Amino acid sequence: MTKVASALIPQEVVIKVTRVFCQTVLHTVSARPLRSAILRLIPRTALLPWLSSRAVSVSEWPLLSSPPRDYSLPNPSWSTEMRRLYEYYDSLCEKEMEGGEKKPGGWGRLPSYNRTLKYAAGGKCLSKLLKEKARLFTRNTEEQGAAFEYVVFMNKSEKRCVCIFQAGHLLEGPPGNVHGGAIATIIDTSLGTLAGYLSGIVMTANLNINYCSPIPLGSVVLIDSVLDKVEGRKTFVSCQVTSSDGSKLHTEATGLFISINVGHLFGG
Amino acid sequence: MTKVASALIPQEVVIKVTRVFCQTVLHTVSARPLRSAILRLIPRTALLPWLSSRAVSVSEWPLLSSPPRDYSLPNPSWSTEMRRLYEYYDSLCEKEMEGGEKKPGGWGRLPSYNRTLKYAAGGKCLSKLLKEKARLFTRNTEEQGAAFEYVVFMNKSEKRCVCIFQAGHLLEGPPGNVHGGAIATIIDTSLGTLAGYLSGIVMTANLNINYCSPIPLGSVVLIDSVLDKVEGRKTFVSCQVTSSDGSKLHTEATGLFISINVGHLFGG
Repeated sequence: MTKVASALIPQEVVIKVTRVFCQTVLHTVSARPLRSAILRLIPRTALLPWLSSRAVSVSEWPLLSSPPRDYSLPNPSWSTEMRRLYEYYDSLCEKEMEGGEKKPGGWGRLPSYNRTLKYAAGGKCLSKLLKEKARLFTRNTEEQGAAFEYVVFMNKSEKRCVCIFQAGHLLEGPPGNVHGGAIATIIDTSLGTLAGYLSGIVMTANLNINYCSPIPLGSVVLIDSVLDKVEGRKTFVSCQVTSSDGSKLHTEATGLFISINVGHLFGG
Repeated sequence: MTKVASALIPQEVVIKVTRVFCQTVLHTVSARPLRSAILRLIPRTALLPWLSSRAVSVSEWPLLSSPPRDYSLPNPSWSTEMRRLYEYYDSLCEKEMEGGEKKPGGWGRLPSYNRTLKYAAGGKCLSKLLKEKARLFTRNTEEQGAAFEYVVFMNKSEKRCVCIFQAGHLLEGPPGNVHGGAIATIIDTSLGTLAGYLSGIVMTANLNINYCSPIPLGSVVLIDSVLDKVEGRKTFVSCQVTSSDGSKLHTEATGLFISINVGHLFGG
């Protein structure tokens, strides 16, 4: 399952072994204690990238014939304001210039897929094998502009990320405004992305959200998240959700994320 | 716009007046101060039912030719466990028996529609006029079983409600488990329904959520919500999310909801 193995073993054999492995462990074996026991036998290094809920890049893998669709790139549903903000942060990103030189920039855009499995090496193939119909909650709608349109830019040195979010018509709560749960969702996504980027595999342990003013459907807001502190396995982060020009505070929140091991996800 | 008016004025005139009114106030008039000023001229009693985000019954209205689809009734996607729990709480509900007598029962099932506007008198018609494509975040998927399947039962005397929730495959966060934002969403829905039932029109002011153990996709959980206290415009509620047999605590949360006036939703 590693690059070394795939270089020595024919690709179709790797595919078959992967399929049998996945079906056996996570589908056929329904008894949770047995499933957990099998998972404990697998080297953590092999499973970690597949199970990272907020990893930040797609690794190369022989089974990955083409990269999955990146939902965080501009599409025709993006408003002028959404594009303007995207272009602003994109201009601050580190980029390779002619002659191989790198243009300095403290920021980087994070890709975004419709399953967290797809962030990892071999994730596209794995995604077909494991609960194929499952979709990441924030990327479960194919219709562009209908639900969550967002892109996250990360600044590693500042331990900060900014999420540009355009709220589609399927996110309604009170008439004409975004549902409190949808706001919580984009906050969990932003804070979790930052915590995961800084601390590895994490899961949400606490969210404390203050809703200050409603967010109208169709509007674009910024979620600006920062690291507060790290204490052992605990990563504390916080964010503000503001209007796109920063003049109006819509929501503010704190989040606590816990570094986990693989077995936790499977009831171990 | 009242029943008296509709009895005196031909229905097509009522429809036309309603359409012109809505288009003028909420679409054509884009300047927020002007829109708010117009909204302030309208009697609150006329707008309140349309704008209640968590009202509990569909009132009769001459324009309402047929009731909207009630998403909280059983459908083929419901698992055996979901149906068992539904039937248990349904058996505790007050019901009319033969001869017009009422079978006592402290519980009542709440209907659920794909827009909050549809809860109100004339809401189905209004929904077509105002942001027609908008959908309630928790009811925006037509495919049964794919996203949020839930039903809320209310016990008014105990100031408590129970939400039975089956998590579909479109709600994924960490591989195989429900997204923290989807859990926050069903918590906001449950707590907000209780607060709204007890205190009228409310909006979420704070959610504080502790995530204790992941919820596997496809599983059925119970969200048991109670009133803690009411202080002026503030309604304090809390809930626990447990496995369907109550043995495992998945999540616990507190919520603060503020009673609002209509203008707040429109930036007034």
